[in-house]
Amino acid sequence: MGPRVRFASRNPGKLREVREILAAFGWGVDPLPTRFVEPQTDNLRAVVRAKLAVLRDLSGPVLVEDSGLFLPGLGGFPGVYSAYIAEIWGGPKGFRPLLRALEGAPRTAIFRTVAGLTVDGRDHLFVGESRGTVARLPRGSGGFGYDPIFIPEGQRRTFAQMSPEEKNRFSHRGRALRKVGRFLLRPGPADAA
Amino acid sequence: MGPRVRFASRNPGKLREVREILAAFGWGVDPLPTRFVEPQTDNLRAVVRAKLAVLRDLSGPVLVEDSGLFLPGLGGFPGVYSAYIAEIWGGPKGFRPLLRALEGAPRTAIFRTVAGLTVDGRDHLFVGESRGTVARLPRGSGGFGYDPIFIPEGQRRTFAQMSPEEKNRFSHRGRALRKVGRFLLRPGPADAA
Repeated sequence: MGPRVRFASRNPGKLREVREILAAFGWGVDPLPTRFVEPQTDNLRAVVRAKLAVLRDLSGPVLVEDSGLFLPGLGGFPGVYSAYIAEIWGGPKGFRPLLRALEGAPRTAIFRTVAGLTVDGRDHLFVGESRGTVARLPRGSGGFGYDPIFIPEGQRRTFAQMSPEEKNRFSHRGRALRKVGRFLLRPGPADAA
Repeated sequence: MGPRVRFASRNPGKLREVREILAAFGWGVDPLPTRFVEPQTDNLRAVVRAKLAVLRDLSGPVLVEDSGLFLPGLGGFPGVYSAYIAEIWGGPKGFRPLLRALEGAPRTAIFRTVAGLTVDGRDHLFVGESRGTVARLPRGSGGFGYDPIFIPEGQRRTFAQMSPEEKNRFSHRGRALRKVGRFLLRPGPADAA
């Protein structure tokens, strides 16, 4: 059995993706369901640092992440509040209020993940981004959250219309977690923060 | 000089209104500019309790409040995130994304204030609500925040089209703060929580 890292999250979609991505680096992932009180801030890194601060004393490497969809046409909204907005507007509701809010505004979108790893009492941050556009209507049933309305740059399909492998190749989370995977293979200075 | 309470807020609009409202009870209000790290929660009371926890050891009565505009047609949005959404969508931007998001949805709105008072190491909460609707377009230049788009029940004008006295009479903040004023005049059990 190879090395293992604990992933502090209560989101099954994120756990599945983190497992898929780190498996390629030979690392196994165990869930560590944690209910964080996240600070209100417009900064993913501050949220990740607050999560790491709670977990720093656990033994063995522990991984956290925070992700958000940032829409410049809406002043960066929903940003760090993406999970809350997905909860009240997403799923079967199809993000209708969000799509209406975007009418007539630029549809550019940036999906961003900050992953945080605490190992031997030290914290490391890794950033991943995926640029694209917001679809006019939700399409596809894969993934979770905003995947049915996010089309990565150079593609015609939404994340929810892609296989997990394809989504992870283009996704913010895939990009951040592959940095984590490379770091776990060869600990050195964090390659993004 | 009459009795004084410190109001922990960095919002000049709130300070002005709290002063106007408590003046009727003979209390003066001194600003206590405080930068809180607010927890991410969908509950105004939890935010107020977190603010009070930081201030409890100060001498003399200290007042805090948290307010939000809750739109049932948008799943309660913007709710506890009202200040953030007002910052990115309000002011000269006229809340256009919010008004677009509401198109075709019920326009009912509930403005809610939770005021918290800590005095002699004990916390007291006071709730005030104002029900109404969201205007189709911003109107008026009084008040602050969502006032140009909120029409209280039974009225035709927005809060921003009213005099301060008129707004305070109908407003969530006026209702919560008058409870505070009555409590300060005659300390007894908090009359709302």
